[in-house]
Amino acid sequence: MAKIAFLGLGVMGAPMARHLAKAGHEVRVYNRTTSKAERWVAENGGAWAPTPGQAAQGCDFVFCCVGADNDLREVTIGPDGAFHAMAEGSLFVDHTTVSAQVSRELEAEARAKGIGFLDAPVSGGQAGAENGKLTIMVGGDAEQFKQAEPVMQAYAQRIGLMGPSGSGQLTKMVNQICIAGIVQGLSEALNFAMTAGLDPRAVVEVISKGAAQSWQMENRSSTMVDGQFDFGFAVDWMRKDLGLVLDEARRIGAPLPVTALVDQFYADVQKMGGGRQDTSSLIRRFRG
Amino acid sequence: MAKIAFLGLGVMGAPMARHLAKAGHEVRVYNRTTSKAERWVAENGGAWAPTPGQAAQGCDFVFCCVGADNDLREVTIGPDGAFHAMAEGSLFVDHTTVSAQVSRELEAEARAKGIGFLDAPVSGGQAGAENGKLTIMVGGDAEQFKQAEPVMQAYAQRIGLMGPSGSGQLTKMVNQICIAGIVQGLSEALNFAMTAGLDPRAVVEVISKGAAQSWQMENRSSTMVDGQFDFGFAVDWMRKDLGLVLDEARRIGAPLPVTALVDQFYADVQKMGGGRQDTSSLIRRFRG
Repeated sequence: MAKIAFLGLGVMGAPMARHLAKAGHEVRVYNRTTSKAERWVAENGGAWAPTPGQAAQGCDFVFCCVGADNDLREVTIGPDGAFHAMAEGSLFVDHTTVSAQVSRELEAEARAKGIGFLDAPVSGGQAGAENGKLTIMVGGDAEQFKQAEPVMQAYAQRIGLMGPSGSGQLTKMVNQICIAGIVQGLSEALNFAMTAGLDPRAVVEVISKGAAQSWQMENRSSTMVDGQFDFGFAVDWMRKDLGLVLDEARRIGAPLPVTALVDQFYADVQKMGGGRQDTSSLIRRFRG
Repeated sequence: MAKIAFLGLGVMGAPMARHLAKAGHEVRVYNRTTSKAERWVAENGGAWAPTPGQAAQGCDFVFCCVGADNDLREVTIGPDGAFHAMAEGSLFVDHTTVSAQVSRELEAEARAKGIGFLDAPVSGGQAGAENGKLTIMVGGDAEQFKQAEPVMQAYAQRIGLMGPSGSGQLTKMVNQICIAGIVQGLSEALNFAMTAGLDPRAVVEVISKGAAQSWQMENRSSTMVDGQFDFGFAVDWMRKDLGLVLDEARRIGAPLPVTALVDQFYADVQKMGGGRQDTSSLIRRFRG
């Protein structure tokens, strides 16, 4: 069993840290809002620390799941950041979805200090974190991956090493590009079905085993028809991810005409007050 | 066992008619190019007729799978069409993908003559027709549906009565709208992955069980990566279907921003000489 620090106890981080504690690791947590860290310790044991550096002190692994690029920089290279406290040979695993460039920049900073660094964004949402069934897309060194993999098994269903530093982030971007096209197609299709006077559930039933099938159709079409969006992966987070995707695509020269358009459609949903709703709320542009 | 006429022995119609003959029905076929009808009879028994009317004479059911609106009008209400020859109480089942309005128009013409008419477009492609595993989306009268359903089981995996006349066509349109968004998203995603230097197969492997999953990802991503498109449902047919979709959407007032864009992208693929290639060749716009 390892000594582990976990930075960031949001809807994803809190259950992930819980799975590590349940697996028998010694877990010390840090959260910007201290009360959340205290509550986590009251429920799961372990200890909490007031800064990322103090949490990381003496640990074999530091896991992290925070908001975005700037939060990640703060908990790693900020004045109280983990990188200043971590021992040589210890390993930082970042589960935050950030730009591939920030991942590579922090990997280089870590390497200069003799620390390992893996970018390891996840998919599977809050439910996946709670059930321990996340998909983890990892970028970085193969030896470091071998060290972290058995620990991450505590909350993963699938873990893949995708290539050098940044490749985890790039893989997550591919995932979000697929979702953008699928959810928009499904929104247009369900709105068309309802406007045409069809029973959209009967339509999904008959087409859901063929070439139009998708996870989104199986898991979201019924709630889209009902106009229920108070769950799942929020539009605000999707827009953050699509912003990273479009920046990277511009950098490498990959055209994303529909992804760019869907990003704008999600901006419409935000304007309608849907920023905290599930990504399937894209259909609201058609149906209010 | 029933007396059946089958009109149109293309890549879909020929195997569908074969399944009816194998099921023990007495099948008489018609095809515009007579040599195909002669060959079909040589291989499958039964008989062929030189006109749709002569094929339909004395039959309980007339099934049909031709090219588009005008072909369908010709074999039904044209001078040698089936409607002039069909007995009262017999049933015409149209498997062609046409506009919902043509379906409704022909249903009304049939009804005036005491003939039943179902619109019953299919999905599942040539493979589905050959394996007898098509999905059939039916519009029309429930009693007529009950008569036709057991006969269509010969080549179907799924059969749904979707509503009144035209509803089968509308359901097929919903199917094609979903596919347009999915295939474009997948094309952008795979091109992004390859441009970013990722191994696209490894990426698909890791993301293919989550929210980005689709039938298209499972069945087409590998061939898209290899640039193989000489199979499956052709771009020319997809453009025909999307033309019907966009006309109907304009009529009923359902916005289809991404479907309309993807239709234009398929026009690009046609210009590149890809009209006969599988719909997954949409990725060629990015990769040539």
